Amino acid sequence: MLPKEENELLCLTGPGTPMGRMMRRFWMPALLSWELPDPDCPPVRIRLMNEDLVAFRDSTGRAGLVGAHCPHRGAGLFFGRNEEEGLRCVYHGWKFDLTGQCVDMPNEPVESNFKSKIKTTAYPCEERGGVVWTYMGPPELKPGLPELEWGLVPEKQRHASKRIQECNWLQALEGGIDSSHISFLHGGLPPTREKSGDPDPISAGYEYRRRDKSPHFELIDTDYGLLIGARRNADEENYYWRITQWIFPWYTMIPPFGGGGIGGHAWVPIDDVNCWVWSFSWHPTQPFSDDQLTEMQRGSGIHGEVIPGTFNLKANLRNDFLIDREEQRQHSFTGIKGISQQDCAMQETMGPMFDRTKEHLGSSDTAIIGTRRRLLAAVGAHEEGIDPPALDAESYRVRSFSTLLPKGVPFDQGAAEGLKAQPGVFIASA
Amino acid sequence: MLPKEENELLCLTGPGTPMGRMMRRFWMPALLSWELPDPDCPPVRIRLMNEDLVAFRDSTGRAGLVGAHCPHRGAGLFFGRNEEEGLRCVYHGWKFDLTGQCVDMPNEPVESNFKSKIKTTAYPCEERGGVVWTYMGPPELKPGLPELEWGLVPEKQRHASKRIQECNWLQALEGGIDSSHISFLHGGLPPTREKSGDPDPISAGYEYRRRDKSPHFELIDTDYGLLIGARRNADEENYYWRITQWIFPWYTMIPPFGGGGIGGHAWVPIDDVNCWVWSFSWHPTQPFSDDQLTEMQRGSGIHGEVIPGTFNLKANLRNDFLIDREEQRQHSFTGIKGISQQDCAMQETMGPMFDRTKEHLGSSDTAIIGTRRRLLAAVGAHEEGIDPPALDAESYRVRSFSTLLPKGVPFDQGAAEGLKAQPGVFIASA
Amino acid sequence: MLPKEENELLCLTGPGTPMGRMMRRFWMPALLSWELPDPDCPPVRIRLMNEDLVAFRDSTGRAGLVGAHCPHRGAGLFFGRNEEEGLRCVYHGWKFDLTGQCVDMPNEPVESNFKSKIKTTAYPCEERGGVVWTYMGPPELKPGLPELEWGLVPEKQRHASKRIQECNWLQALEGGIDSSHISFLHGGLPPTREKSGDPDPISAGYEYRRRDKSPHFELIDTDYGLLIGARRNADEENYYWRITQWIFPWYTMIPPFGGGGIGGHAWVPIDDVNCWVWSFSWHPTQPFSDDQLTEMQRGSGIHGEVIPGTFNLKANLRNDFLIDREEQRQHSFTGIKGISQQDCAMQETMGPMFDRTKEHLGSSDTAIIGTRRRLLAAVGAHEEGIDPPALDAESYRVRSFSTLLPKGVPFDQGAAEGLKAQPGVFIASA
Repeated sequence: MLPKEENELLCLTGPGTPMGRMMRRFWMPALLSWELPDPDCPPVRIRLMNEDLVAFRDSTGRAGLVGAHCPHRGAGLFFGRNEEEGLRCVYHGWKFDLTGQCVDMPNEPVESNFKSKIKTTAYPCEERGGVVWTYMGPPELKPGLPELEWGLVPEKQRHASKRIQECNWLQALEGGIDSSHISFLHGGLPPTREKSGDPDPISAGYEYRRRDKSPHFELIDTDYGLLIGARRNADEENYYWRITQWIFPWYTMIPPFGGGGIGGHAWVPIDDVNCWVWSFSWHPTQPFSDDQLTEMQRGSGIHGEVIPGTFNLKANLRNDFLIDREEQRQHSFTGIKGISQQDCAMQETMGPMFDRTKEHLGSSDTAIIGTRRRLLAAVGAHEEGIDPPALDAESYRVRSFSTLLPKGVPFDQGAAEGLKAQPGVFIASA
Repeated sequence: MLPKEENELLCLTGPGTPMGRMMRRFWMPALLSWELPDPDCPPVRIRLMNEDLVAFRDSTGRAGLVGAHCPHRGAGLFFGRNEEEGLRCVYHGWKFDLTGQCVDMPNEPVESNFKSKIKTTAYPCEERGGVVWTYMGPPELKPGLPELEWGLVPEKQRHASKRIQECNWLQALEGGIDSSHISFLHGGLPPTREKSGDPDPISAGYEYRRRDKSPHFELIDTDYGLLIGARRNADEENYYWRITQWIFPWYTMIPPFGGGGIGGHAWVPIDDVNCWVWSFSWHPTQPFSDDQLTEMQRGSGIHGEVIPGTFNLKANLRNDFLIDREEQRQHSFTGIKGISQQDCAMQETMGPMFDRTKEHLGSSDTAIIGTRRRLLAAVGAHEEGIDPPALDAESYRVRSFSTLLPKGVPFDQGAAEGLKAQPGVFIASA
Repeated sequence: MLPKEENELLCLTGPGTPMGRMMRRFWMPALLSWELPDPDCPPVRIRLMNEDLVAFRDSTGRAGLVGAHCPHRGAGLFFGRNEEEGLRCVYHGWKFDLTGQCVDMPNEPVESNFKSKIKTTAYPCEERGGVVWTYMGPPELKPGLPELEWGLVPEKQRHASKRIQECNWLQALEGGIDSSHISFLHGGLPPTREKSGDPDPISAGYEYRRRDKSPHFELIDTDYGLLIGARRNADEENYYWRITQWIFPWYTMIPPFGGGGIGGHAWVPIDDVNCWVWSFSWHPTQPFSDDQLTEMQRGSGIHGEVIPGTFNLKANLRNDFLIDREEQRQHSFTGIKGISQQDCAMQETMGPMFDRTKEHLGSSDTAIIGTRRRLLAAVGAHEEGIDPPALDAESYRVRSFSTLLPKGVPFDQGAAEGLKAQPGVFIASA
């Protein structure tokens, strides 16, 4: 149960909100690089943190992000001409460069030099890992680009996707740090009934998660956020530990499912009732096969299948996630196909912005409680001028990991090597 | 003309409103039994009185109604598994029985017994007359199920349907107690011009209603609500009386049209700007023919034809009720086919929640004025702890009736036998 | 930059607003006469100035405009029977004449004479130029119908159209008085790149506007509003003047493009976030050819192509105005076809009601600044009982005009003859 005031403090991220202010201290994934395929290609509309923006790639190939409306009289810059190192409004020809500076104003007398006084909203962009990143905070406080491992490995070793989810960012994030739900939502029938729908039918981990559905949680505060250990019974000597991270402000990581790579998410606010769900799969040392890449592009695993030309799931709230009730009765716990779709169904049906005065949390929600606590503390401190955690780009060099550990061994110590993002080294999860 | 405050007092029925509190003292029709065809069938979403609910039929065949969201973290229970005498949320496996009690919580340690502390919103249900009824009020004050005659006759002697109407419940109810409009909306052209659209072209009653379009109204306060006599001139010695009831809080009855059965409605709030229009046809002593039942299922008479798989009229506000202007000019008063559709057109075009400060009532609105007066009095009294009328289940044992009576005979006395719901006895209307 | 209060004062036109009160002192175009083709034809719904109305043509052929809801209990009069010199509500048969007087009330006893006390909202209508005009102000203050030239010439010499635009009226009007944007939005590529999309590729005026994109503006206050001179360099001795008018409260005029007629617009509020864009083309002395009339009916020039049966542009906000990015890159400044569509794209993407605290006006916005100044002054004066300008019907007898004038000649004097709407006389623009 969270008081209304704390819920709003965590959920609202528009300009002028405390959480919005703190989040703007971080780089965020804004677009997939392929959305801006060429220099001077058509601009793309994008909403981030309650701000309407237009992305474009200028004549030299650099990506930029400017306010959606021309500062002259407000016409939509999406309809602008992207030409000669700037985006030109077609209403009166005003042109803006990547920094938002007006560099041409052909409808005004040259001698007035009015253009030098006009600068529109613009956010710096960088590209890494096939993603256009942007920074919406105070320029003088811009940190380094977060060194998430998937962004640093060669192209063949990673896949990134994004989709729109119609709910507030926090309830989406909370699904991402919830090691409890995977025993149910992503595979909860006994093996004799379960035909499909399990992400990882062959691993020992699946069997442990199936047999012990009430994991014991242990949290460790770190400089980047939380290290979350979910402990399940394995055998007489060992526990099965599923260890995940929450990294400020919106990143989560999950251990590999079966033969796939490591997985990660970013849950980035579009506005108060919509968010971008970014999904990342990567292998630290080996390229994916072409078949694996094709499958991921088609939406397998944590990458949901979207309606072509959109970032909306094919199975979505408007079609009840294509639930198959007979399948649910006979073979699958949910009757909904796909991990993303299952997660989305739960997170969206909580409502556009979940009212946490109505929740009833148990011990399985330990990580969620811990994450909120850290977020609230950091937002409060940030309002008093203290930097949030995880501004150091290197603090993102971690991996999720699952493993068997002898009883009595602290999970962070026993799993230490598996949790580091060491270039050229990969330790397989259990 | 009703002051704004009184209008809102009558119209608003959500939790915490005075009218909402009083209405929750009564059983209400919630679903058609066939919407929950089998034990453990898929759950059904339903909105009632501004509350989002999920209906299900458990393994033993009993119907239940619970809050739409899991009390744990708010996921939609509509996507739940209906199995083994309970509805199980697919997010973390919490399971609820018909009473709302959490009976399984597999993601928490058994020893915590957390499940015993979790109870979700649940409303008791009973079935009668092919309808699932629910009671949303204080458990200790639950009355008996209203003994409306259509719910007590054999299945072949009745037909029940429901449809969604996009307006506040009260303006819908007011249409149901308005004996004046039937001379116009449901048949207002002289016989030479009227080709179709009259519900009852062969009865004498139709002719009386056509000839005398400004009936004189007399109201009698009863223990269940109002007995409403609409008096029209018939011949030198007799008046034609059309006698209808309004029964607390939302029931209306109408005499048979032609060979059809007696009719009734319930106008039940979905929320402040939508309501369920329930329609009931029944014959006290004889089964309908298969043809008659088929016709009613297809939407004839007071049962409107809906878009298959929905409860929305085919002819609706979005398609201007398929009005045929040439038909209206030549043959029909409205150009709209069907009694339900004609009523719906008038009631919905009053706006989502009619602003009664703008109305101008005449003597033909006597019954409407009387109904509001009773409702306001009952709501005021209820707020002071006084039970509303019609909690006695037997008070619903009445029938509407139309008849010729000699001038000077009080209508409630002259028509007394026709107005009683006597098992095995049926007196035909004029 | 306009303060929020002044922006709202200018934009809001509902009943009870200062601008709404002042605007209601003027006749306004309400419907195209062909929307009401015959006596007793079906009624037509129309929203004007935040009021929902129903237009009808009575048995004698006169047009009328009444409130959308029956004053009895609010049912929609759109579904009414238009018959025998009045519109009859089909709920209870109440009938209203053109003045709004209830002239029949068949559901009430004749002796009560209740009908004489019931009068619904009704606005007087007149027809001129193929348009139904209405006056929504105080009856005693009704002025003469504005003598706009297009309304006075023979039918073959004019064409009028209307379309819905989804934005506040003022930002639409501002586009109409903005002589600066036509160098860009309606034709901004050098001739070698420009293949199509220019309204007037053969005129000398086009060449002047293309070469000098930063016109110097001069405003002259007149008894009807503003005379706006946009001066561009032509040759050593001459300036090219494009002279347009803004006439209280919502009319703009533009000089002929090429061989077409003179053009004009009215930007009439539907509600706060929608407006009617009326477009008028006329030739003072010559009939249009049948081909020209057909082209205009199909939406050429300032008349946009609408979805048949609607007043919505085919190319609209929902389909990104069918922008062709390759066309925009190669041949056209905007990639959007059609002057109306180009204007609409700019005006609608400013948002439903543009927030003028965010604008940055330059010298090219001189006419817009002047118009707002006059409107604000007139609204303020009107609130103190002073009549607005342009109530004199003759003040509308003006034409827009473009011409070369020797440097040093004041434009209003040099162009005086071209700016008068003199019957039988036409001076061609440059």
